Amino acid sequence: MKIIKKVLDVTTTKDEQMIDITEMVRETLIGTSIKNGTLYLFVPHTTSAVTINENTDPNVKKDMLYSLKQSFPIEKEFLHFEGNSHAHIKSSVIGNDQTVFIEDNDLLLGRWQALYFCEFDGPRQRKLNLQFVGE
Amino acid sequence: MKIIKKVLDVTTTKDEQMIDITEMVRETLIGTSIKNGTLYLFVPHTTSAVTINENTDPNVKKDMLYSLKQSFPIEKEFLHFEGNSHAHIKSSVIGNDQTVFIEDNDLLLGRWQALYFCEFDGPRQRKLNLQFVGE
Amino acid sequence: MKIIKKVLDVTTTKDEQMIDITEMVRETLIGTSIKNGTLYLFVPHTTSAVTINENTDPNVKKDMLYSLKQSFPIEKEFLHFEGNSHAHIKSSVIGNDQTVFIEDNDLLLGRWQALYFCEFDGPRQRKLNLQFVGE
Repeated sequence: MKIIKKVLDVTTTKDEQMIDITEMVRETLIGTSIKNGTLYLFVPHTTSAVTINENTDPNVKKDMLYSLKQSFPIEKEFLHFEGNSHAHIKSSVIGNDQTVFIEDNDLLLGRWQALYFCEFDGPRQRKLNLQFVGE
Repeated sequence: MKIIKKVLDVTTTKDEQMIDITEMVRETLIGTSIKNGTLYLFVPHTTSAVTINENTDPNVKKDMLYSLKQSFPIEKEFLHFEGNSHAHIKSSVIGNDQTVFIEDNDLLLGRWQALYFCEFDGPRQRKLNLQFVGE
Repeated sequence: MKIIKKVLDVTTTKDEQMIDITEMVRETLIGTSIKNGTLYLFVPHTTSAVTINENTDPNVKKDMLYSLKQSFPIEKEFLHFEGNSHAHIKSSVIGNDQTVFIEDNDLLLGRWQALYFCEFDGPRQRKLNLQFVGE
């Protein structure tokens, strides 16, 4: 079993955004030569997240960001001086880690699935940590 | 360290539903002979999820689905042509992966915990991917 | 690759609370001598959770708990006889597992990240399960 770590750069261009990172992650996996095992994605920030969702209609991303904005609005009772508490809670609700199985040196995703980096307080230069474990 | 993959079939019968899959997963684990390690559950769909919650009062499931419906309603502003954006956001909020420790060839769950497959846009024939890693 | 399990005790003192467990987890990691690999945190309860968020301004925790309370209120339609369904849904929304990379026998966290045990139905005596896998 090998353990290989990589760090990817993700540039976000909007305040809230879901960026499809599937191909970037797949290319990094191919470079590791790991055939079978587990990939962990980890976002080292507290106002962004990583998730898996639909890869076809771009309106799904828009609707998801809209739904999150409705469900976790900026509350006038918020105390945090930076004014981005809505982004912190979204980060923990969507989550900053994601596990994906590796098979035949490829990501074992469902037919309609893509990996998304979720920006909730951009635009910013972000990092995405990857750890590949397998053989 | 061995890596063993399995795929389970889950048949959902309602539009929204939490199905206890603990025994099905436990029996699959027993079949692998892995004594100590990690189990990863992964849902290869974008309108369903997997989670852990209470195993006793069936009203907990009803209340959880009700709470999600209240918090992530169908919004008239949704753009996705399939009309199931509420199911997509619930999938990412609950999450499509879950980690469980393996000990003595059993799932190391708390006393009140069960594993649930969460359907948010059913009924459908679903898959659940399992990966057992250990010795 | 070694697999080492540990169980930590977490005493919560409020009904809803986020407790910084980073140092407690880091000290446990140091004790394992694992230099490189993966740490899994797992909460064996159904009304608490684990997450990663900001480590500096304590108001972020207050705002996050406030936001969750607004988004997942106690609904008069809830059926569960214990009256804590709001805590069950929060547990599944934040999630009861978290993955962290291990490097140089340390937690590979971002500069502003801390690990939090999230109590949603306290105060209680809680457990936190850890599994270290690596070399």
